[in-house]
Amino acid sequence: MSVVTRYIEVHTKGGTDVIDLTRGIKTELKTTRLNQGTVTVFVSGSTAGLTTVEYEPGLIKDLKHFFEKIAPENERYAHEETWHDGNGHSHIRASFLGPSITLPFINGELTLGTWQQCILIDFDNRARERRVILQFVGE
Amino acid sequence: MSVVTRYIEVHTKGGTDVIDLTRGIKTELKTTRLNQGTVTVFVSGSTAGLTTVEYEPGLIKDLKHFFEKIAPENERYAHEETWHDGNGHSHIRASFLGPSITLPFINGELTLGTWQQCILIDFDNRARERRVILQFVGE
Amino acid sequence: MSVVTRYIEVHTKGGTDVIDLTRGIKTELKTTRLNQGTVTVFVSGSTAGLTTVEYEPGLIKDLKHFFEKIAPENERYAHEETWHDGNGHSHIRASFLGPSITLPFINGELTLGTWQQCILIDFDNRARERRVILQFVGE
Repeated sequence: MSVVTRYIEVHTKGGTDVIDLTRGIKTELKTTRLNQGTVTVFVSGSTAGLTTVEYEPGLIKDLKHFFEKIAPENERYAHEETWHDGNGHSHIRASFLGPSITLPFINGELTLGTWQQCILIDFDNRARERRVILQFVGE
Repeated sequence: MSVVTRYIEVHTKGGTDVIDLTRGIKTELKTTRLNQGTVTVFVSGSTAGLTTVEYEPGLIKDLKHFFEKIAPENERYAHEETWHDGNGHSHIRASFLGPSITLPFINGELTLGTWQQCILIDFDNRARERRVILQFVGE
Repeated sequence: MSVVTRYIEVHTKGGTDVIDLTRGIKTELKTTRLNQGTVTVFVSGSTAGLTTVEYEPGLIKDLKHFFEKIAPENERYAHEETWHDGNGHSHIRASFLGPSITLPFINGELTLGTWQQCILIDFDNRARERRVILQFVGE
């Protein structure tokens, strides 16, 4: 059993930008030479989140629409009174989606379905450089 | 320390069907003979999700009502234009709930509360066979 | 590799009370003497949840407002017909947020961002004593 840390550097456009991390995670998993275990995918910072989705253009639009509906950009946020940076909605969206997802791997392969990709969503209102942490625990 | 993989096969009815996995997870935990660690419960596919709830009929109704309210079945989804399979809402609900939950176990027992069950919610619009992965990491 | 269990005892006021656990988790991480791994933070019970946020008063207000908007306290919940304890909204909010979050640590330090705190949200409608479980897996 061991712990292996890897990173994926991502350039995002912000504005609920949806980035497919799947290929990057698979590539890094190969380099660990681990066969069985879990990988915790984690993004530092409080305006981005992680989940899975069938990565196709329709659903990317639908996701953006969904987040705009339940935590609209132009609503009034008390966070504005503290920082005046216009990204109150980004924080709320990131908090309920969550910054972390743990995925099993078996026989050296991620257990994601064929039409299931692991995505980073950057909710911030500007372009960002994000360093995604992959914490592999396995044997 | 070791990694032990187990599976739970579930038949669902779709339509935000809520399935209690707790007994299955407890049974599999016993077979691992592990005492301390975590189990990552994961569902492959992009139209189902995992969480915990007090599993009683009222809350099951309330959960269905909640998901219908925030991501309605009959809203227009761009996913439809790609696949025409009528399950855009299923994907959105699954993405924000998430396909993975990690639960600690201590002295061979899950740490769930007495009125807290681990559930699979199948958001797809048809019956499905789901294979839930249990990735135990522990000693 | 080993598993180390720690606890944080928290007194909450209920009513979507937001509690910063970050310092407690960091303190417990030091006592484990682990350098690399993950910590699964978990709350037993079905009316509380975990996530991360920039812990500042504006966002705490915004989070409370968000949860009240998507799962209002005074809506009618079928859970009421079972238990009559007035906390149907607490259960729905908790299920939606989730009771568990897994965070990586590297070189003995949590990988949370500077403005990213790990929080417990107690959605119950009364004060509660909560025992948060920290399950460290690492080396």
